[in-house]
Amino acid sequence: MLKVPDHQVAGHQASDGVIGPLVDDSGHFYKPLQNDERGSNEVAFYKSFSSDACIPAHIRRYFPIFYGTKDIEASDGSGLHPHLILEDVVSIYQKPSIMDIKIGSRTWYTQASDDYIEKCLKKDRETSSLSLGFRISGLQMFGTKDSEFWKPGKKLTQSLNSDEAKLLLRKFVSSNMPADSDVCPDSALASNVYGGPAGVLEQLLELKAWFENQTIYHFYSCSILILYDKEAVLKERSSGALIKLVDFAHVLEGRGAIDHNFLGGLCSLIKFISEILTSPKEDLHL
Amino acid sequence: MLKVPDHQVAGHQASDGVIGPLVDDSGHFYKPLQNDERGSNEVAFYKSFSSDACIPAHIRRYFPIFYGTKDIEASDGSGLHPHLILEDVVSIYQKPSIMDIKIGSRTWYTQASDDYIEKCLKKDRETSSLSLGFRISGLQMFGTKDSEFWKPGKKLTQSLNSDEAKLLLRKFVSSNMPADSDVCPDSALASNVYGGPAGVLEQLLELKAWFENQTIYHFYSCSILILYDKEAVLKERSSGALIKLVDFAHVLEGRGAIDHNFLGGLCSLIKFISEILTSPKEDLHL
Repeated sequence: MLKVPDHQVAGHQASDGVIGPLVDDSGHFYKPLQNDERGSNEVAFYKSFSSDACIPAHIRRYFPIFYGTKDIEASDGSGLHPHLILEDVVSIYQKPSIMDIKIGSRTWYTQASDDYIEKCLKKDRETSSLSLGFRISGLQMFGTKDSEFWKPGKKLTQSLNSDEAKLLLRKFVSSNMPADSDVCPDSALASNVYGGPAGVLEQLLELKAWFENQTIYHFYSCSILILYDKEAVLKERSSGALIKLVDFAHVLEGRGAIDHNFLGGLCSLIKFISEILTSPKEDLHL
Repeated sequence: MLKVPDHQVAGHQASDGVIGPLVDDSGHFYKPLQNDERGSNEVAFYKSFSSDACIPAHIRRYFPIFYGTKDIEASDGSGLHPHLILEDVVSIYQKPSIMDIKIGSRTWYTQASDDYIEKCLKKDRETSSLSLGFRISGLQMFGTKDSEFWKPGKKLTQSLNSDEAKLLLRKFVSSNMPADSDVCPDSALASNVYGGPAGVLEQLLELKAWFENQTIYHFYSCSILILYDKEAVLKERSSGALIKLVDFAHVLEGRGAIDHNFLGGLCSLIKFISEILTSPKEDLHL
């Protein structure tokens, strides 16, 4: 019944001796709780968030549905282990193109241990987090032919400068498969995936409006997933593109201030996506 | 002709043996260039900014006018020293109430020296920069009586939590002089200073719209001044309140990304001011 997910682009992945998430065929995603306070933090966040009447429905849809926790056989065969039961946000797609974007120039917070802060700060400086306000932690793309599939490694995605980030965000919505090659991405799907009244940009702007106001949570090391199905876009000219927030092991109370760290990174991402929509054919080469 | 300014709430101040800014009676502010790269950086910024045709006029008005540089006798009597000649932004006020708010959760940038980064990071963590996205570096307030004047020290303003910051932002627009005391600030001037079509909030929102889009400059360790004249507000019911950006010794090129660090802090400040306008009478005590 449970199996390792086909479509995971970042985070801990199940393999020999390594515990990782599992999915079933009913649209559930089982995320093993980390043993330290990250596990309990993430459960606490989902419990708080899912029962908080102040979260508007149009914002709630950007978060995976939370179904509770359960002890199940771990993916590494080590026996029963507590898991979060979440909505499998990619289960509605046949061939999901997925981008995982870790939001915020700062992934650490002052209450964390010195070791953790030092590790995060080093990584924020080495990657594009500090410069761009986000880093692309992973992605996968399907082409129109069965053989076409691209899943670049972290090293190729997380330390981009602004031209490189814009190019990758263009490749992600191109009908040609530029992959690592020098082929110029045609951005053919940009207007359907990023644009339009239900596209990614409008969803990001809706999320931004909430972040300009909410002082309940501060989201550190949290990712936005961008999800769409290329075949559906090419056939139906509508994207069904979705954004989803994931990874809440480092959510803190807002204590009366907005999450300026997340909001700043989100606005930076919005600026990149807006520019692609404004000039989809711009010639950019690395 | 030149004298030490009457109304300086933060930054290096002229005193025996210490070089500081000077003003004349024609509305000029003479800022001594720092000897290291901070001095040359600030000159380079003012030259670039004042000649950049891409800066819209409605944004340019938030920056002091730049009149060039000049060698003049330094305030500490040490002889000729190069100074920036700038608009004296407080010269139009008789009794200016001033708040200096250093914007951004991060005052350092990755190109700086390790020592500088460590010093800034420590200060960002000790003050409210990291938590609120800004810190109040200084302020002064006049009352309606001649004897009423309040200028709390840095220690009282720069390390506030969100309740304390909101209280101080209320005190700053109150007709009673709560100063350090327990008197509840009446926020009587909030709607005229912070609110209204030409008030502080509208000006901050205009600046925000520019920061959501501009990728020319990144402003580290830069301050927003909020300026108004209490007597004018009480007499004319219009505030003449202004915001001005100052301190550009640490401005960097944007390199294709928005200044998400400044923007995040600015949005946080906007949220505080909005809340005061929404509930001006809220009872807040420290």
